[in-house]
Amino acid sequence: MSWKPVLPRLPILQWRHELDRQALVDDALAGVIVAVMIIPQSLAYALLAGLPAQAGLYASIVPLVLYALLGSSRVLAVGPVAVVSLMTAAAVGEFAQANTVHYAEVALALALLSGLMLTVMGLLRLGFIANFLSHPVISGFITASGLLIAASQLKTLLGVQAGGHNLPEMLAGVFAKWDQVHSLTVGVGLGTLVFLFAVRSQLKPALRALGLSPRAADLLSKLGPVAAIVVTTGAAAALDWHGQGLKTVGHIPQGLPPFTLPSWDLALWGELAMPALLISVVGFVESVSVGQTLAAKRRQRVDPDQELVALGAANLGAAFTGGFPVTGGFSRSVVNFDAGARTQLASLITAAGILLATLLLTPALFHLPQATLAATIVVAVLSLVDIPILGRTWRYSRPDFLALLVTLVLTLLQGVEVGLVAGVTVSLALYLWRTSQPHIAEVGLVPGTEHFRNVQRHQVLTAPQVVSLRVDESLYFANARAIEDRINEAVAREPALRHVVLQCSAINDIDASALESLEAIDERLKGAGLQLHLSEVKGPVMDRLQRSSLLQHLSGRVFLTQYQALQSLAPELTSVDINENRSHS
Amino acid sequence: MSWKPVLPRLPILQWRHELDRQALVDDALAGVIVAVMIIPQSLAYALLAGLPAQAGLYASIVPLVLYALLGSSRVLAVGPVAVVSLMTAAAVGEFAQANTVHYAEVALALALLSGLMLTVMGLLRLGFIANFLSHPVISGFITASGLLIAASQLKTLLGVQAGGHNLPEMLAGVFAKWDQVHSLTVGVGLGTLVFLFAVRSQLKPALRALGLSPRAADLLSKLGPVAAIVVTTGAAAALDWHGQGLKTVGHIPQGLPPFTLPSWDLALWGELAMPALLISVVGFVESVSVGQTLAAKRRQRVDPDQELVALGAANLGAAFTGGFPVTGGFSRSVVNFDAGARTQLASLITAAGILLATLLLTPALFHLPQATLAATIVVAVLSLVDIPILGRTWRYSRPDFLALLVTLVLTLLQGVEVGLVAGVTVSLALYLWRTSQPHIAEVGLVPGTEHFRNVQRHQVLTAPQVVSLRVDESLYFANARAIEDRINEAVAREPALRHVVLQCSAINDIDASALESLEAIDERLKGAGLQLHLSEVKGPVMDRLQRSSLLQHLSGRVFLTQYQALQSLAPELTSVDINENRSHS
Repeated sequence: MSWKPVLPRLPILQWRHELDRQALVDDALAGVIVAVMIIPQSLAYALLAGLPAQAGLYASIVPLVLYALLGSSRVLAVGPVAVVSLMTAAAVGEFAQANTVHYAEVALALALLSGLMLTVMGLLRLGFIANFLSHPVISGFITASGLLIAASQLKTLLGVQAGGHNLPEMLAGVFAKWDQVHSLTVGVGLGTLVFLFAVRSQLKPALRALGLSPRAADLLSKLGPVAAIVVTTGAAAALDWHGQGLKTVGHIPQGLPPFTLPSWDLALWGELAMPALLISVVGFVESVSVGQTLAAKRRQRVDPDQELVALGAANLGAAFTGGFPVTGGFSRSVVNFDAGARTQLASLITAAGILLATLLLTPALFHLPQATLAATIVVAVLSLVDIPILGRTWRYSRPDFLALLVTLVLTLLQGVEVGLVAGVTVSLALYLWRTSQPHIAEVGLVPGTEHFRNVQRHQVLTAPQVVSLRVDESLYFANARAIEDRINEAVAREPALRHVVLQCSAINDIDASALESLEAIDERLKGAGLQLHLSEVKGPVMDRLQRSSLLQHLSGRVFLTQYQALQSLAPELTSVDINENRSHS
Repeated sequence: MSWKPVLPRLPILQWRHELDRQALVDDALAGVIVAVMIIPQSLAYALLAGLPAQAGLYASIVPLVLYALLGSSRVLAVGPVAVVSLMTAAAVGEFAQANTVHYAEVALALALLSGLMLTVMGLLRLGFIANFLSHPVISGFITASGLLIAASQLKTLLGVQAGGHNLPEMLAGVFAKWDQVHSLTVGVGLGTLVFLFAVRSQLKPALRALGLSPRAADLLSKLGPVAAIVVTTGAAAALDWHGQGLKTVGHIPQGLPPFTLPSWDLALWGELAMPALLISVVGFVESVSVGQTLAAKRRQRVDPDQELVALGAANLGAAFTGGFPVTGGFSRSVVNFDAGARTQLASLITAAGILLATLLLTPALFHLPQATLAATIVVAVLSLVDIPILGRTWRYSRPDFLALLVTLVLTLLQGVEVGLVAGVTVSLALYLWRTSQPHIAEVGLVPGTEHFRNVQRHQVLTAPQVVSLRVDESLYFANARAIEDRINEAVAREPALRHVVLQCSAINDIDASALESLEAIDERLKGAGLQLHLSEVKGPVMDRLQRSSLLQHLSGRVFLTQYQALQSLAPELTSVDINENRSHS
């Protein structure tokens, strides 16, 4: 239970030595490919977060550089990602109107807070906080987020105005405007959707059939969104779709990312603290799991504490350069890895590419239809939706299923924050509930061995004067009473009983409440003329018991093994057993 | 993890058959003794709760009868108790001014809510909720409550006006009025205090010396408060102390307990829900522990669920008859037991006695000095204060000590509700923290046996190609990552490693998150050319793993015992061992 703060390191000092000519070429190629792929993605996620499109570009430059210098993963690519953008929209939307200056300031404050939290968690080695997001909660949350994001794009695909931060609100908002659907927008959106699904399912096999390598086919088919954007933007510009009511990205200022100051309103910070913490933890979990998966493929390691510091720096960078909360993204990192990136030099080249785009390319994005971006988002996030996990989890564990279901349903119905908090609460409560109802087995001797097994599962030997109970859980305050009840019951059932033996092989700790219960049990048994014995007490537990007065007052003894306990308390049983054993051999 | 609702029973149907002539006499005697003893106590605790003195009498009539009919303890006596009265004052004081009609209505609503909660908890078998009050939290809370109650009586002992719900407020209030101290009040209060301490320490040995039986001496010395009341009330009446500014109990209406309706203000109910829950749980824990202690002395049992229903009924009774929250009291129950009570008939007689007192005796209480009652409270609650528990808990367990200290200090400084909630939160957080940092031992074979022990604590045999890890904790979401990290570390350290064996003897459960981690570990080891094996998997854990796909994909095998695993993976080691073993014998 001891920890020491970590000093931030500069992993770049390690990998710069690995940069030979081949690595330089590989990284440069991967960097360019990723830059091309994530420009549309960054624009789309900025709109999803309720921000102007350029915020997505800005959030992909300085944060990417800072992560490249500090991160322990060689291939992770940092920037706006779908789930964090959704959480940003939900959090900021409570304090400001979308597409206002104040909204952007609140988003910067959120990135700042998130950056500070991640950095502090990293320096103080508090990354274990993320462990309390259980796998079912994450699964439920990610699936619900995918559905929410897809639903949030409906209004853009249909060309209507609508809002809402949960599924019923979003659907109601869209259906209420059903008569205002803009057919040109629907045409562009649906066309892009169909195209993207076709690319995803058809292009790769087709390219393979043309003789391309699997990796090249895979990478090319991931450029589908770029192709869709080029085509629809060109068409919009040529046919003046903007003039016909189609919403486009519009004017994006040309130039370097601006230097921005987040809101310093401390009352606002207080209210943003909880969303910032959730965004930090979710972003960290997503980023580290991507990083670890990719690192394992090359037998590299990712250091979670260093990751916290690096992601913290990336978010601080976003806060001061017109961005919004960022984290390591799955799709961009996979593209980076598949394109052959060796080191974070690839990310530096990506950042340079995006910087070039903000300097030169932004006028060309004026006619980019928002419906096209919405379609790319829908296709991207549907891969987050994992419905079969419901069945798998149901089969494996009902409590885990409950945690998953609560998170999924509440995220859809009440929004991301309520869903996450409820999921964590339910999984902690279920864990406490389970450990408070420990499995307690009455055990007996397996004939011919020194092993003890559950009397209800095995043919074993027992003596009427001895009951041996094995508690399959550490003893602590929440289950101390259950053990008292179980022993009371055993004593009441068996009138010949003289000895109660607690086999402690699965007891990893006994806290002060459980100690008090053991003393009460011992006192009660003593009063009734019975003795309480312990067996197979683990070293650390015994060390601790010796600092209490239990062992001095204990009516019975402490046996090294359960077999020795039975030998001593019911010798006739073990001698019978040994005879049996001999006659067998 | 299954439960079924309990139907309330009438334990009176059992014990009425046990009422022979001797039991009737015993119960009658005990009932009268308890009635005499608890009249002053009831008045005192009503004042402590901020209510008129008669509320204490009312709370000791109908609630006592209802518990007598429904309770599963034969000797528990229900009524106002010190800690619950303090909690009532703290809760009601937030919504109303003491000694107003509204204050009394809020107190009734609190009793009603508490009664409903206890009844529902009993019917739904939710009594395990009380298990989450750990022993250190209860100890810290009771000690702090004793100190708070004693401090709250200072103003009455000094005859000044002051308020406050925490220690600094109470002390500051009294010291600010230091110049207004009323000397006659101080004289009566101090005199009573000295007398009561003297009775407590001197009277019992003196009575024994006079030849009385220990039990009789004990009971007589417990009547000290009654004697103090008779003497000071007589003196106050004779010398007109009331006219000289001494505060007395004053006018108490004569007659039956009134039929009262609690406040039906639903907004108020919402705000009272948390205090009512805390009062219910604390009252239940105090009552059940008293009941169990006394029941064990006669080898009887107390049924916690039935107790919840009975205490719920008692509180509902209090809510409709001018009372306030009640529970089973330690001192009154011990007196009842020591006086020889056999069944709840004794409590019915006590209730009749108190009813008689409200009909006939109340005019005589007009001159009873409040300072006398304050002195009886101080002497009673100082027995709640247990300072040595701090040292005992410190020596046994630092986390438990921390929970105790937080509860104690916060209850004193911030009041009862903050203290309790913080204590429960801290003890749960510490438990989760501890289980999230599991003890993981690398184990080796003890030469000449089939046993495996920690390589750091014992001289054991290991093989370079095999690492055996024993995790001393169930695997769940909060510690899944710690296990991943530990295995990664072991693999990185030992280049010759080919096999990782997880000895699962202390693993009582593997949740979906930990399953996911095991799959990820297996996948990663497989990629690095290593195998993951499991050994000594418990029955219920194996049942569950068989419903997952882990075992189908597992790179290694599942061994029944750790010894079989080592025999199979490093046969040269176990053969060496057997040779060694033979050469020894």
